[in-house]
Amino acid sequence: MNYFSSNFKLGILGGGQLGKMLLYNTRKFDIQTNVMDASPEAPSKLACNNFTLGDLMDYDAVFNFGKQVDVLTIEIENVNVDALEALEKKGIQVYPAAKTLRTIQNKAKQKLFYVDNNIPTAPFTRFAYTSEIKEAINHGGLTLPFVWKSAQFGYDGQGVKIVKTLDDLQNLPNVECIAETLVPFKNELAVIVARSANGDVKSYPVVEMEFHPEANQVEYVICPARIDDNVAKKAKDIALKVSEAFNHVGLLAVEMFQTENDDILVNEVAPRPHNSGHQTIEASYTSQFEQHIRAILNLPLGRTDSKVGGVMVNLVGAEGFTGNVVYQNIETIMQMDGVTPHIYGKKETRPFRKMGHVTIVNENLNEARRVAEEVKKSIKVISE
Amino acid sequence: MNYFSSNFKLGILGGGQLGKMLLYNTRKFDIQTNVMDASPEAPSKLACNNFTLGDLMDYDAVFNFGKQVDVLTIEIENVNVDALEALEKKGIQVYPAAKTLRTIQNKAKQKLFYVDNNIPTAPFTRFAYTSEIKEAINHGGLTLPFVWKSAQFGYDGQGVKIVKTLDDLQNLPNVECIAETLVPFKNELAVIVARSANGDVKSYPVVEMEFHPEANQVEYVICPARIDDNVAKKAKDIALKVSEAFNHVGLLAVEMFQTENDDILVNEVAPRPHNSGHQTIEASYTSQFEQHIRAILNLPLGRTDSKVGGVMVNLVGAEGFTGNVVYQNIETIMQMDGVTPHIYGKKETRPFRKMGHVTIVNENLNEARRVAEEVKKSIKVISE
Repeated sequence: MNYFSSNFKLGILGGGQLGKMLLYNTRKFDIQTNVMDASPEAPSKLACNNFTLGDLMDYDAVFNFGKQVDVLTIEIENVNVDALEALEKKGIQVYPAAKTLRTIQNKAKQKLFYVDNNIPTAPFTRFAYTSEIKEAINHGGLTLPFVWKSAQFGYDGQGVKIVKTLDDLQNLPNVECIAETLVPFKNELAVIVARSANGDVKSYPVVEMEFHPEANQVEYVICPARIDDNVAKKAKDIALKVSEAFNHVGLLAVEMFQTENDDILVNEVAPRPHNSGHQTIEASYTSQFEQHIRAILNLPLGRTDSKVGGVMVNLVGAEGFTGNVVYQNIETIMQMDGVTPHIYGKKETRPFRKMGHVTIVNENLNEARRVAEEVKKSIKVISE
Repeated sequence: MNYFSSNFKLGILGGGQLGKMLLYNTRKFDIQTNVMDASPEAPSKLACNNFTLGDLMDYDAVFNFGKQVDVLTIEIENVNVDALEALEKKGIQVYPAAKTLRTIQNKAKQKLFYVDNNIPTAPFTRFAYTSEIKEAINHGGLTLPFVWKSAQFGYDGQGVKIVKTLDDLQNLPNVECIAETLVPFKNELAVIVARSANGDVKSYPVVEMEFHPEANQVEYVICPARIDDNVAKKAKDIALKVSEAFNHVGLLAVEMFQTENDDILVNEVAPRPHNSGHQTIEASYTSQFEQHIRAILNLPLGRTDSKVGGVMVNLVGAEGFTGNVVYQNIETIMQMDGVTPHIYGKKETRPFRKMGHVTIVNENLNEARRVAEEVKKSIKVISE
């Protein structure tokens, strides 16, 4: 197939910030794109060739959008998988595959997939309803503390709670969930693996994630992770194994824990460009967004090593501010060495909403990390 | 002024490939843009916030477009300067300034500007009409050979001719022109200088340009130039002096000759992002496009040093092919180390038309240069 022709169409489900960054690369390669999103103000609306307003969870909307393209990808997992399956049957190339997405969309299924494929993950128990947990504790089948996770639609800061006492169960929704053993860990790590339809595979360096203690959102991503080489190798090997097990095409971001014993446990995966790879735009030979496009179009994969050290800081809405966004002190941070702000273009801020990110690159990773802290202290996402 | 707000508008005259690459950065910073171009298929049409169809040389079109924005810039020099002057009087910030553009648009004026400002340039004589040249030669006021240059609208491959005999004058247009001494040179160099309204100045490393012998178009740009440090310093100092003399705001690409005696002579300038700076996207801490936006919005300038060595190859239409473009062997070059193609999105190719460029980056500049030659040999811009 000639991707670089006006007859070829790439479809992207979701028109958020990830889609926007994908579009820099489709534009660079002059690849025609159709985007669907439910919001008429989606950041991707501007740079795609055709924009469709539609609900990503609606069967007909996804099917009718998808049947007009040659290759279909996603920038968000919450899409109608039945429609994707029907599109695959019609011969549309769908990456990630519907089957993979179905497994990933449900955390219980995802965890069972790891177990079935001998991929290390924290021990867990699945429950059809949160209400069943109390009984399990009473019967000694489960012990406190543990991590409660909603099986469906659990994202950063939602759908996850550390349960230390029975009281902590009170306000949780009564849904399908898992109770996961609370494993003490040193580091949260991530590896992005790119795999193309022809089986070509490359992985990015292991990155280290520092989380905001309250919001449970990534605060810094540090590339490469400051860990022992043998731990990095172990993390990389496991990430490759996960990608292989899914027979995945496209990017797969594998989030992992490094335990106190230096074991690696897979936490969860995202089958698309990921927050833990934003620094690749400035730090790597090939950005994760370009790589995703290379992978799903079966083009040769680009180099995944780094030109320089990179640190990513998420720009999230400050607490106490809701309304029209203002990036206070953005000029201050642009004065610092190797700093590039990425503003997603959302008009309204609210506490902890992801409004952008800032990349800091430097030959010296420690210097980049130091500047990142200055960035974090200086910039504030507030409202007018 | 708050540039990062929906009330601010940046205007760009010209919607070609340079505008397209500028828009990656306005999108990254979420800066609102209005673009005007005469073609309804302009590459910039897609990613700008508002597109106006209009003739860049038409006073009313430029004035009416410009009065709607806060800051106005260009991606091509051929625009109506009278309209820019009127806009400046109305309080619109125009970068480059109308006065600068008026000087640059006319090669005779541009050369006189260098002489007036003690900037070294090859000796030349101005003629109101090409027909006056013959007489000057006959009277001994001018000796063969020399370089004939049309004063107006002389671009790559047009408006320039080496005149060795009187016969060479035959087919030249009878227009205002200059006859420039043919100075033997070792290298063609370029330096891009960024200067903001507050006087903050930074320059990129000196690059080396290799020209295609027939088409008189740049074939390779090599960053940094493989020249002695003292020659590089001299070139940089002169480029800074030119930027200062124009009291320039924005990017100024200064093209220079390195003579056989290692003198530096200014050839010409471009007051905007330039072909000699495309490799900055992948090789530099700050791309020339981001830097131009930083400069004209009076934001702090970014680092101009390189992360890695960079070589740029222009993708021009192959001889003998006209029609719907095909990028033959693009997958072959994408397999090579550190190669990124940039496809401008023009539908029709013709011999020597600029259709895109390819950047090759590597820790080792010689390796990048080697791969660049492989790229050049492999890819062909042909028609269907």
